[in-house]
Formats: sequence, structure tokens, C-alpha cells
Amino acid sequence: MERKIEIKSWFTGLQASIIQALEQEDGTGVFGIDEWDRPGGGGGITRLLKGGAVIEKGGVNFSAVYGETPDPIRKSFQSDASEFFATGVSIVIHPQNPFVPIIHMNVRYFELSDGNSWFGGGIDLTPSYVFHEDGVFFHAALKEVCDQFDPLWYAKYKSQADSYFRIPHRNETRGIGGIFYDRLAAKDLENFTRLWEFTKKVGSAFAPVYTSLIAKRKNTPFTEEQKFWQLHRRSRYAEFNLVYDAGTKFGLETNGRTESILMSLPPVACWESNYSPMEGSPEFVSQAYFQNPTDWV
Amino acid sequence: MERKIEIKSWFTGLQASIIQALEQEDGTGVFGIDEWDRPGGGGGITRLLKGGAVIEKGGVNFSAVYGETPDPIRKSFQSDASEFFATGVSIVIHPQNPFVPIIHMNVRYFELSDGNSWFGGGIDLTPSYVFHEDGVFFHAALKEVCDQFDPLWYAKYKSQADSYFRIPHRNETRGIGGIFYDRLAAKDLENFTRLWEFTKKVGSAFAPVYTSLIAKRKNTPFTEEQKFWQLHRRSRYAEFNLVYDAGTKFGLETNGRTESILMSLPPVACWESNYSPMEGSPEFVSQAYFQNPTDWV
Repeated sequence: MERKIEIKSWFTGLQASIIQALEQEDGTGVFGIDEWDRPGGGGGITRLLKGGAVIEKGGVNFSAVYGETPDPIRKSFQSDASEFFATGVSIVIHPQNPFVPIIHMNVRYFELSDGNSWFGGGIDLTPSYVFHEDGVFFHAALKEVCDQFDPLWYAKYKSQADSYFRIPHRNETRGIGGIFYDRLAAKDLENFTRLWEFTKKVGSAFAPVYTSLIAKRKNTPFTEEQKFWQLHRRSRYAEFNLVYDAGTKFGLETNGRTESILMSLPPVACWESNYSPMEGSPEFVSQAYFQNPTDWV
Repeated sequence: MERKIEIKSWFTGLQASIIQALEQEDGTGVFGIDEWDRPGGGGGITRLLKGGAVIEKGGVNFSAVYGETPDPIRKSFQSDASEFFATGVSIVIHPQNPFVPIIHMNVRYFELSDGNSWFGGGIDLTPSYVFHEDGVFFHAALKEVCDQFDPLWYAKYKSQADSYFRIPHRNETRGIGGIFYDRLAAKDLENFTRLWEFTKKVGSAFAPVYTSLIAKRKNTPFTEEQKFWQLHRRSRYAEFNLVYDAGTKFGLETNGRTESILMSLPPVACWESNYSPMEGSPEFVSQAYFQNPTDWV
């Protein structure tokens, strides 16, 4: 039980500190608070912001749920464990300014009553306009976190992000990736401690990395055409999340809280048929990044 | 071969006549023409309109494809037939004015080289604002078509539309339904003739029914708030199509033409978290229709 309380309360603190950092960087936006209970056990705190100076729509959600193991979980983990416990922090930020990237983070811990437990998560960036230097800065920050634990992790989890955040029917990625890892088993105490430290470092990297990207780009003036490109890219974001994202699918299939699951969807998105940017334009250059995953660092 | 040519050419004509009727009712919009070939055999004509006076975005697509039976089709039909033939007309219209409903129609014919063949299709309406009299008019027109063939068909296919166009995670339907039927087997010549006549009547009903709904509502003035409600309802349309629609799923999984498959997505959509209309408002009244399928006629 100690572990669960420790992780849960650290995640609660992470949510609070990220919200503080985001509100400060935004300047005017304030995250609402919606505390909810899960009928079968546990609950969460959904915190949404809408119409900030920087953040057009954002969600920073915490949950810690437990109880009888639902069938889809038993199936997915091939386990007969009667009880489960799952906690995590999940974030999606859609900025107003098309030069500020969308960001997504998820850190989570999952435990079954048969004694098995796992960590999963990642951070990935979805710029409308790709600035090479921002990509390098972002990936270097994630590599620095990974390198503290294993020299192979960054390459591995970066490549998993490139595979995971693919939109096959568009033949492109959602954005410029990041790191993605799932079901890292905490087999013994040493192992658990290491994965938990890693999770904390990933979670703690979010605010400084993202607020620095916001600060750098939030005051760049933009045209209607540039805003349109952002709305166009957001339609791809919605397609990925609704068609492919495993967490979204799982949530909808298991009757999760729809509003919490779909807080990831963009405030406004545009689907224009057969749209492709003019060759050589900044939009064209950005699109090329989505078509060919880059080695950033 | 006779049948295939007859059906294919009738569908080509249906596409042309619907486009003529829609362009006339729109007043300014013109559908583009994109003819395409399918590498394995066949092709189609994709016709898209954007930014008309009435139609914000619309697609009226025809296709007739054939060749070696793809594995997913063999599986789905539990058949080893080496060749397939599929033809149909597929329409989605997103109007500018929030008082004009979105409409969708699909009529299709499918044949395998083992001699089996099927018809499928339907028409359904997705108003942002539900006008009871429009719902009655729309459903009565569909009932009239069905009643010419079988007194039980309307009730059956209406109920299938209500089941099919459900968005379980929102606990509502996409719109106010219509008729939906699939895999009506053309077992003998009499049967084939009857189903083909039915298909033609469904296809022919589209233009008069929809242009009359457009004519009735297209000049109604609307506010920004009413436009927002339309953009909000369109997000539900996108959710249905990307998460549940069988045709979309099948198309994306079998590497279909993405732009033709996703022409159904709205030009602009809004996702506002935790949005619910004020009790007693017209939006609230409309929402109640989506939550409880209605017996219109």
C-alpha cells in the first residue's frame, strides 16, 4: 500500500506544480477544478483551461482508480488478478499561437493484486510549424532524462514514439515525437525504484521544457493563413486520437469518463479536402518533418 | 456483366443529377471533378464543393471498383470468391447555415465471382437544430419509398439507422436517423430486380427531399451562438465517423483513398469541454432528440 500512496501523492503534487507553471506562463488563463469519484473505486481531478492568453484549450488531469479488475484489463494483461490500481497524470495543451507547439504528456503506474506492476508514459510534441532548433532542444531534454538511467533508453523510446504516433492513412506522424514507453515491469524493489525515479524525472521535465518553448514563441505575430495551417494540423491530431490512440480507444470501450478522455481534442479544427501546402513554403517544410522522422540529437 | 454495367451507369447518372440539383439550390457553389483509377481495377469520380452559398463543404462521390478480392472482404463475407465488384454513390453535405441539416446518403451494390450479390445503403439526416416538422417530412418521404416494396421495411431500416448511428460514448445518436440497410442478398432474378428498384428509389429520393429542406431553411438568419452550436454538433459527427463508422474504418484499414473516405469530415468543428446547452433552450430541445430516438411517422 505504501507504494501506491507515495506514487499517487507525488502525481497529485506534479499536477499542481505543472498547473502553477502553466498558469504563470499563460498570464491570464486559470484551470478549473473538477473532482470526480469513480463508482467502482477511486477518482480524479480534471483541470481544464479554456481561452487563456497562450493556451486556447488545455487539460491537466490526475486520476487514481482501483477496485475489481475490469474484463478488458484482465484480457489485456492476461491476468486473473481480482483487484487493480491505476494512477497517472495526463496532459494535452492546445495553444492559441500556431508557432507554439501542442504538447502531450502521460505518466502512469499500474498494479494488479497478483503483485505485478508496471510504469508507462512519455512526452511528445506536435508543432504546426516545426522549428528545427526547438526539436533539438526538446529531444535533447528528453535524452538527458533517459541518459541518467540507461544509455539505450532515449533511442528506444524515441523510436517507439515515432512508431506509436503514426497516422497510417495520412502516411505521416502526428508531430515530431518524443519518448513513449509502456509496460515497464517493476519486477523487484531495485527495479521499481529505478522506474519510479525515471517516471518522476519525466514528469518533472514537462513544465520547464514546455514553458520555455511557450516563452520563445508566444509573442510571434501570425496571419490568418498561419492560423489555418494550425487548424488543419489539429484535424490530423483529432484523427490520430480518435482512430488510433490506444488510451482513447480503451477509455471509450470501457465506458470511461468521456469528457476526461476527449479533453485531448482540439478546441477548433479544420478539415479541408485535398489540401497540401505550396512547395517550399514553411508549411511544406514542416510537413516533410511529419513524413520522415528526424534524428534530433 | 449486364447487371454491373446497368447499375454502374445508373449510379453515374444519379451522381450527375444530384450534383445538378445541389448546384442549382446552392446558387453559387460548383462541384470540382476528380477522376481516379484504382490500381487493382476500376476507379471513381470524386466531386467536392467548398465554400458555396449554402454548402460549406460537400462531397458526392461515385466509384466502381473490381479485381482480386482483398483479404478483409473475403473474411467479412466468409467467401473464397477470387473476384469482386463494388459500386456506389456516397454523399455527405455540410451546410453553412446551422438551420440546414447535414445529410448523408449511400447506395451500393456488391458482387462476388461466386455469384452472390448484395445491396446496401441508406439516407440519414443530422440537423444541428431539430425541427419536428422537418423530421416528419424527411421520415415520411423515406417511409413512402420503403412502403412501395414492403410494409415492414421502413420500421426495420429506420430502427437499424437508430442503432447504427449511435455514439455510445456520448450516449446519443449522430442525428435523427433515417433508413439504413446492409447486405440485402439478391438471391434470384425477381429478388434482384426488386432490390435494384428499391435502391433506385432511395437514390432518386435524395435530391428532392434535401433541396426542399435546404430551400426551407437556407435564408433563416443565425447568430454566432447558433453557428457555435452547429460547430459543436459537427464535432460529434466527426467522432462518430472516426470512431464507429464501419465504412470509414474499412476504408482506412484497407488503404482506401483517404481523401474520398474522409470527405465526410466537417470543414470546421469545435470541441468544447463539458459543454451542455441551457435547459429549455432550442439547443437543449434538439439534444433531447439525439438522446431519445423518435417515432416520426
